[in-house]
Amino acid sequence: MPKIAIDVMGGDYAPDEIIKGCIRASKETKCVLVLVGKESVIKEKLKDYTYDPDKIEIVNAEDVITMEDSPVTAIRTKKDSSMVVGLKLVKDKAVEGFVSAGNSGALLAGGTLVVGRIKGVERPALAPLIPTKKGNTLLIDCGANMDAKPAYLDQFARMGTVYMEECMGVKAPKVGLINIGAEEEKGNALTKEAFKLLKEDEKINFIGNIEAREIPSGEADILVCDAFVGNVILKFMEGFGMWVFSMVKAEFMRSLKTKIAALLMKKGVMSIKEKFDYASKGGAPLLGVNGLVVKTHGNSKEKQIYCTIMQTEQFIENKLIEKIASKFN
Amino acid sequence: MPKIAIDVMGGDYAPDEIIKGCIRASKETKCVLVLVGKESVIKEKLKDYTYDPDKIEIVNAEDVITMEDSPVTAIRTKKDSSMVVGLKLVKDKAVEGFVSAGNSGALLAGGTLVVGRIKGVERPALAPLIPTKKGNTLLIDCGANMDAKPAYLDQFARMGTVYMEECMGVKAPKVGLINIGAEEEKGNALTKEAFKLLKEDEKINFIGNIEAREIPSGEADILVCDAFVGNVILKFMEGFGMWVFSMVKAEFMRSLKTKIAALLMKKGVMSIKEKFDYASKGGAPLLGVNGLVVKTHGNSKEKQIYCTIMQTEQFIENKLIEKIASKFN
Repeated sequence: MPKIAIDVMGGDYAPDEIIKGCIRASKETKCVLVLVGKESVIKEKLKDYTYDPDKIEIVNAEDVITMEDSPVTAIRTKKDSSMVVGLKLVKDKAVEGFVSAGNSGALLAGGTLVVGRIKGVERPALAPLIPTKKGNTLLIDCGANMDAKPAYLDQFARMGTVYMEECMGVKAPKVGLINIGAEEEKGNALTKEAFKLLKEDEKINFIGNIEAREIPSGEADILVCDAFVGNVILKFMEGFGMWVFSMVKAEFMRSLKTKIAALLMKKGVMSIKEKFDYASKGGAPLLGVNGLVVKTHGNSKEKQIYCTIMQTEQFIENKLIEKIASKFN
Repeated sequence: MPKIAIDVMGGDYAPDEIIKGCIRASKETKCVLVLVGKESVIKEKLKDYTYDPDKIEIVNAEDVITMEDSPVTAIRTKKDSSMVVGLKLVKDKAVEGFVSAGNSGALLAGGTLVVGRIKGVERPALAPLIPTKKGNTLLIDCGANMDAKPAYLDQFARMGTVYMEECMGVKAPKVGLINIGAEEEKGNALTKEAFKLLKEDEKINFIGNIEAREIPSGEADILVCDAFVGNVILKFMEGFGMWVFSMVKAEFMRSLKTKIAALLMKKGVMSIKEKFDYASKGGAPLLGVNGLVVKTHGNSKEKQIYCTIMQTEQFIENKLIEKIASKFN
C-alpha cells in the first residue's frame, strides 16, 4: 500500500486539526498515513480516537519549523523538524507523498533542497486550483518563483498540462498567459517573451493572453504567471470573496424581512459558498519536484487536511510526478 | 471659467454616450466643456439636446485613434485625432483638464509625449480608486509602467499622498506596498528594493507591505505597485465581482420562493451593488503629467462620463497637478 506522510506540526491549527483530518482520511484512503511530528504528543492525541492501526504510522521528529522561521535557514538547520523529516521520507521513497500546512516558503525551499528537482525542470511551481464559471482552473505559479524567467512559464505550462490531463481528465487543456491585454505585443518584459515561447511550444494547447477580468470565465484550464502575480490573484480572490460574502450576510441579518429572505435563499447562498469552499479543494502540489509534495493552506482544519490527503492519493494513483518527469526526459 | 476638454470620439460608446454625459455634466459643472471630435458629427448630435450654449464649445478633430491602434505610433502620426488635439489643448493651457475613454495605451503615451512630465517625476502613473470596507483606496499604478523601478514606486506614493490629501481629504494617508507577505524581506526584486525606499521616505506615511488578501480591508489609503500588478487587481476585481453578482442574481431568479426573497432583499442588494458601481467613481487621473489628463473606462456610458467630468472639476478646484508639481520641486 502506498504511504502518505503528513506534517502533523505544521499550520495554524497543528497538531489537533491535522490529526483529526488524518483520522478522517484514514477511514477512506487506501494509503497508510505516516504522521510526522513529536511522537509523544501524537501518541497522546491519538488516544482520543478510534482508527485502524494498520492505516496510521508515526515517525518521530522533535523539532518544528514555525511560520516565522526564515525558509532556507530553517530547512538547512532544523534537520529534525517534522517538515524536513517528511521531505526526507519522500526523497528516500519511504513514502509516496507528503502533505504540509506549515511554512510555505520553507516547504518550497525544502522541495528543491531536500527532495530535488525533476531533471530538466528549472524551477518547481506551486499550482492550486481556483474556482471559475466552468469548474476549476489551475493557477501556476503561486508560490515559488517571484522573479520568473520566460522559460519557467513555458515549463509551468507543460507541467500544468500533465496535471489537468492526468488528474482532472481535461483533454488538450487550454493554456492562457495572464496578461494586461489580449494582443500578443501587450505586457511586461516577462510576458512578452513568454508569449513567444508558449506560442511555439507544440506540447501545449496555448490560447493566448488572458486578461485578469476574464479569469473567472474559465476559458483557460491552466493560467501561467510568475509567483508574485499568482499570489496576488489567489489571495485577492480569497480576501475579496470573504468581504463580499460578509456584506451579503450583513444585509440578510439587517431586519426581520431580510431574515425571512435569508431563509428562502439558504439553498442558493450555500450553493454559491460551496463554489468558494477552498477547504474542499484540498491543497496545491509543488510541481517539478522529484517527488510528491503537497502544500495546503496554513489555516487548514480537519476538512481541508482530509481533502488534501484524498487528493494526494489521487495524485499517487494518477502517477502525476512520474508523468511530469516523462515529459522532461 | 475653467475649461474641460472631452474626447468625444474615444470609447466603446462614442460619440453618443460621451455627448450625453457632457450634456448632463454641463447642467451642473461650473466649467465650460470643450467637445473635441468631428465638428459635423458633434453639431448634428447636439441638435437632439437642450443645453446652455455658453457651457459647450466644439474643437474640430477629423481623425480618431481606435482601440486597435498602436499607442505610440497613433500619438505620433494621428496629429488631428480627437485625443491628440485634446492633449494639445492641455499642453497649451487652453483647457484645465482633458477626459478620454479612448485607447488607454495611447492616452498614457500621449500624456508624456504631448503634454510632458512634471519636472522631477520619472514616470507618470494611472491612479483609480477602488472600493474597500472603509471607503476607497487609491491603486497606483494601474496603467503606465509595466516594468517599474523601485524609485518609481516611491514617486507613486508621493503623488498618491497629494491626491488623497487634497482631493479626498485624508490626513497623512497611509501608504501600503502590495506584496506577497507582511515581512520586510518578502517579495520580488522590485518590492524588496521599493520597501527600503518607502520606509526611508519622510514625505509619506508608509505602513509596510499589504498582502492581496488584505486589500479589501482598506487599511491603506494608497496602495503602490507596478502597473502589471495594478492592472491585474483592478481587472480581476471587476471580473470576479461581476461573476459573483451574476451567481447571486441567478439564485434569486431560481424559483417563486427565491424571487420573493429577491424582493425582500432588494434594498440590501442595491446597497452592495452601489459600492461596486464603477461608473459613479468616475475615472483615473494620470498623475505625474504636467497637466490634468483623466482616463475613464473604455465602456463608459453617460453616467460615467458625467461623473468623470464632475471629478475632473474637483481636481481642477483642488489644484491637484500644481500641488503634485510643488512636491517635486
